Amino acid sequence: MKRPGERPVAVLFDVFGTLVDWRGSLIDELSAFGARRGIPCDWAALVDAWRGNYAPSMDRVRRGAQPWTKLDDLHRASLDELCEDFGLEALFEADRRWMTLGWHRLRPWPDTVPGLSRLKQVAIIGPLSNGNLSLQVDLAKSAGLPWDVTFGSDIFRHYKPDPGVYLGACALLDLRPDQVMLAAAHNSDLAAARALGLRTGFIPRPTEYGPAQTRDVRPEQAWDVVAESVEQLAAALGG
Amino acid sequence: MKRPGERPVAVLFDVFGTLVDWRGSLIDELSAFGARRGIPCDWAALVDAWRGNYAPSMDRVRRGAQPWTKLDDLHRASLDELCEDFGLEALFEADRRWMTLGWHRLRPWPDTVPGLSRLKQVAIIGPLSNGNLSLQVDLAKSAGLPWDVTFGSDIFRHYKPDPGVYLGACALLDLRPDQVMLAAAHNSDLAAARALGLRTGFIPRPTEYGPAQTRDVRPEQAWDVVAESVEQLAAALGG
Repeated sequence: MKRPGERPVAVLFDVFGTLVDWRGSLIDELSAFGARRGIPCDWAALVDAWRGNYAPSMDRVRRGAQPWTKLDDLHRASLDELCEDFGLEALFEADRRWMTLGWHRLRPWPDTVPGLSRLKQVAIIGPLSNGNLSLQVDLAKSAGLPWDVTFGSDIFRHYKPDPGVYLGACALLDLRPDQVMLAAAHNSDLAAARALGLRTGFIPRPTEYGPAQTRDVRPEQAWDVVAESVEQLAAALGG
Repeated sequence: MKRPGERPVAVLFDVFGTLVDWRGSLIDELSAFGARRGIPCDWAALVDAWRGNYAPSMDRVRRGAQPWTKLDDLHRASLDELCEDFGLEALFEADRRWMTLGWHRLRPWPDTVPGLSRLKQVAIIGPLSNGNLSLQVDLAKSAGLPWDVTFGSDIFRHYKPDPGVYLGACALLDLRPDQVMLAAAHNSDLAAARALGLRTGFIPRPTEYGPAQTRDVRPEQAWDVVAESVEQLAAALGG
């Protein structure tokens, strides 16, 4: 990343955890909902269990045990199961829909919007997330993410780390993989991108999973850039 | 469009002609190129012939006589033919590439960016064009089009007026067709959208094809909104 010619033309971002605080946002929103409606529940445990179902539910799609299903629908099916486990069987359809759309209203980390705004001056920026496109669009609108291009996993009908997501984005941008950087808080996402020839930027988010987080607190490979924030990543790329 | 509840959630725009002045931009750019390089040519005639090949070249893809080919590649193949016709056989590969990418650098009409910026306050806005995604992204970056969502025909692998483009965009936005408006300077595009249940906004661009234009100078159906500019469309939609 030393020579100017090596600056990536596009920087694509993982979103959940890397740019937005899904855990804190959902716990706050659902706790307020529970208080407002007088529904007792361990909302933090529900949110952690919800996210716990995330990878297994996508894996069923990935290995073909389930036909293509977008993330909103995986989130909803998982929530319905959790309502049974958490004694929330009586929750209305409208509430369940609203809760599922909570994933469209997540708060950005404080450095996200300033960092993306800087990076946008020197590169094409966009999301490369397992969220569906409507989720990305709603999130960008509510959080003020200033994207140049909007990808969603339902454009590719694949979930990361399937190669079709990373290479599909490069193809639609008409860029070679080495002209594109993936920025993420997750080593496994970066490893998949690097294996396909993309550049890599690691932004650890040591509290994404709460105070007891042990995973992804440090780089597991020598990523092209390691930055403490999106702003620091932008600075490293000349933005 | 009278009741507030009827405001569309998303407004998608045709781009060539509706938002950007392809003809004026390309004639100016190529005339300057010709002067700089001492290449005599009737550049306006070349640009008109280039655009003349647009619909027939997409039709070959649409009816399956040619496999899916993105617009950049259709533009390039058409330019290569025109180089023969216009005595430009000697043009270098790099020049031909640069000329083809001229479609990524078109100037917006004066009302485009102010109008989109207003409309963005009250609706999700995005392109719904026959251009490929990389063209849309470059155009947005160079012209300052403040999109919330970026569609390109290569996401759908269909060209308008194929239903897959209009309905594919609605599906990815998770919106019903009646929640989405197509805004375009071309009656035929709006007719295809209306037949599928989308709302319609007509913005005539009476000089898109030059001073002698006779087509699309007035609405051929009672479109939901008829506006003289993107700003006027934004005002009609409460923006």
